[in-house]
Amino acid sequence: MSTLIVPAQVPSVADDCEQLQKAFKGWGTNEGLIISILAHRNAAQRKLIRQTYAETYGEDLLKALEKELTNDFERLVLLWTLDPPERDAFLANEAAKRWKSSNLVLVEIACTRSSHELLLARQAYHTRFKRSLEEDVAYHTTGDFRKLLVPLVSSYRYSGDEVNMTLAKSEAKILHEKIGDKACNHDDVIRILTTRSKAQINATLNQYKNAFGVDLNKDLEADPKDEFLAILGATVKCLTYPEKYFEETLRLAINKLGTDEGALTRVIVTRAEFDMKIIKDEYQKRNSVPLDRAIAKDTKGDYEKLLLALIGHEDA
Amino acid sequence: MSTLIVPAQVPSVADDCEQLQKAFKGWGTNEGLIISILAHRNAAQRKLIRQTYAETYGEDLLKALEKELTNDFERLVLLWTLDPPERDAFLANEAAKRWKSSNLVLVEIACTRSSHELLLARQAYHTRFKRSLEEDVAYHTTGDFRKLLVPLVSSYRYSGDEVNMTLAKSEAKILHEKIGDKACNHDDVIRILTTRSKAQINATLNQYKNAFGVDLNKDLEADPKDEFLAILGATVKCLTYPEKYFEETLRLAINKLGTDEGALTRVIVTRAEFDMKIIKDEYQKRNSVPLDRAIAKDTKGDYEKLLLALIGHEDA
Repeated sequence: MSTLIVPAQVPSVADDCEQLQKAFKGWGTNEGLIISILAHRNAAQRKLIRQTYAETYGEDLLKALEKELTNDFERLVLLWTLDPPERDAFLANEAAKRWKSSNLVLVEIACTRSSHELLLARQAYHTRFKRSLEEDVAYHTTGDFRKLLVPLVSSYRYSGDEVNMTLAKSEAKILHEKIGDKACNHDDVIRILTTRSKAQINATLNQYKNAFGVDLNKDLEADPKDEFLAILGATVKCLTYPEKYFEETLRLAINKLGTDEGALTRVIVTRAEFDMKIIKDEYQKRNSVPLDRAIAKDTKGDYEKLLLALIGHEDA
Repeated sequence: MSTLIVPAQVPSVADDCEQLQKAFKGWGTNEGLIISILAHRNAAQRKLIRQTYAETYGEDLLKALEKELTNDFERLVLLWTLDPPERDAFLANEAAKRWKSSNLVLVEIACTRSSHELLLARQAYHTRFKRSLEEDVAYHTTGDFRKLLVPLVSSYRYSGDEVNMTLAKSEAKILHEKIGDKACNHDDVIRILTTRSKAQINATLNQYKNAFGVDLNKDLEADPKDEFLAILGATVKCLTYPEKYFEETLRLAINKLGTDEGALTRVIVTRAEFDMKIIKDEYQKRNSVPLDRAIAKDTKGDYEKLLLALIGHEDA
């Protein structure tokens, strides 16, 4: 489901490094050359390029890129070049340090990644920041938000498909009761959403709809101004319909007065190699406009070119 | 620091399996033969034996042992034969299902294991129980105990030695305030103990002693009847002085009116291959009696023989 286009004949790593170095040399930077290489290499290939570049030129490729590039394009290239677990660790650290209740990045990383991917991100976090992710999240949050976010980022959910229907029924009832009582911060609500497997939560939401005739997420939207309800809703969406969550994030980022480049960049770099094809389909279905056209209308220059290349635009 | 004695010349795995099969055959079981093999093989060797036994005789070695053995000796052999992460998963599951506030097994597993060992146990838990450890712990606990235990078993602490002294000072102050106010279930107390690295917690406890002239654990003992304080004290001990925690657990297990075989078995099988030498030294220092003599006095038969073999008693 990746939108990444890797050529059938990939040049040698040494060649890629030489070309990148050429792109940095002399007056001005050859952004087109950088895009033509990095936008068409997968995570393993980029990792090898970074390693070989450091060995050959004695400088971290990320540092070299940082010196040459600026603004949105710089951030996009840097995030894209990072290995996915390292990138998640980096994004989660930024989000934890600047935490606001409107910031959904932690929920997104904790809930849309597989258990194994989240674990790799936590390991990369140790290596890079010499602390644990849950430690920083716990330190920078308070109250109900801490109560939800710390177990979310610490979770190592069972990934199997097995579902306990009796449990799904009883926990759907608990969720309905607590939401009805406006006790969405209740221990049991947090427990169910932060520890059950995605398959089990999905079964519980189905039972919720069967028994009470409405989507749980509709019930959570009762008070659109309540930021805790919003983050709970995002949790449920990320766990059960990540592609819809990402479509919505892209839609809001693009439709804003002045594009939200932070969200646009984040979703494109983190999903390009995973489920971007499905997200593009969702986007077209929901907006009656293809994602690449929407992005082309809203962005420009090298930033636009790289975004389009990553979502599989043929000309890029 | 292991007390396991593995012979210089270990028989082939096939030979070990054949001998074990012989020990099960005919009238009666040859417990001595079982001990002479399993008590002198390390985790990797036992794993290979289990694998080869299943391939050769079409039966899980654990099932065969279960049929042949009884009581404390059976439990000891079965737990010992398990791979350490599988064993931790098994013990944690038992503890989660039968949870009582006096049950310290979850704290012990969450806090005395390294971050990596705890992670392996959580992975083994998925495989064996088709659920996550934190899911079962959250389901079977309530209130303050849940608030402490779920993040403890979900933690993936940073394992480095780096310490932030400013933070240690400020968090020592927070802990002192909350304990003084009898608010030991305060979010910040839980946060510090469940997310900080062991090195950082150790530094915080040192600052506590420097600033307030008393060990934090002494302050927690203010009310010996308070089970939450007891479990908090055990958490601190397990994180910072696991060998003292294990010595105490053995001492209480042996000194009880009627030995506590559950605790005795658990500590011996889980620590024999890790730090049992240090625990034995601690035991002798604290009780003026060597651990093997204390165990020999309190237990008998094959159970005694295998315990002694595992703690490195030469004759066993």
